[in-house]
Amino acid sequence: MQLINSEWTITEEEVARKAFDIAYKREISSLIDSVRYKASNLAEIDDMWRLHDFLSVKRHEVDGRYDYHLPMLVFVFAGLVKDGWLNLSELEGLNTDKIAKIAALACM
Amino acid sequence: MQLINSEWTITEEEVARKAFDIAYKREISSLIDSVRYKASNLAEIDDMWRLHDFLSVKRHEVDGRYDYHLPMLVFVFAGLVKDGWLNLSELEGLNTDKIAKIAALACM
Repeated sequence: MQLINSEWTITEEEVARKAFDIAYKREISSLIDSVRYKASNLAEIDDMWRLHDFLSVKRHEVDGRYDYHLPMLVFVFAGLVKDGWLNLSELEGLNTDKIAKIAALACM
Repeated sequence: MQLINSEWTITEEEVARKAFDIAYKREISSLIDSVRYKASNLAEIDDMWRLHDFLSVKRHEVDGRYDYHLPMLVFVFAGLVKDGWLNLSELEGLNTDKIAKIAALACM
């Protein structure tokens, strides 16, 4: 099962870029809502440091996740599907082999 | 000008502890208000990472500042007066030598 260095057609690259951007916007929007909610409920200093820890983790996750390189996109999309930021249907247009790999990895 | 290892009477220790706690509550309360305000105005990811950077700096400052050790309290109070978290009048009860040192250091 070859997972990296697969060839991507121009159409597939367009589908991939669009799906990537959709997931990114979706996750960031959800994250902003979470931070607003947590901040509106701050009552004491420990809540504030918990918000700081939360932001540290999320920044690390987001920086690591949204790195657009074609050879690694199968893994990126699998993670996004697994974590609920992307639906497999939004990858329609990729070849069936790639979709199958993404679906399989997302279940691991 | 001896700045550390001064003797503290029981009355002075009571004044110091009270002033320390007042400043702490005042700064934390202000910080919570700032974080709530910044969070309510989050519009994009860069705002969120700026909030994260802000919390990183403040956590470092607060952890460093509020370390209650009598020998260093003159410096701690000078910093709190300088940054507006404590008024000299709230240190009334300390001897005049300590007040003078704190006032002088706060102007540096």
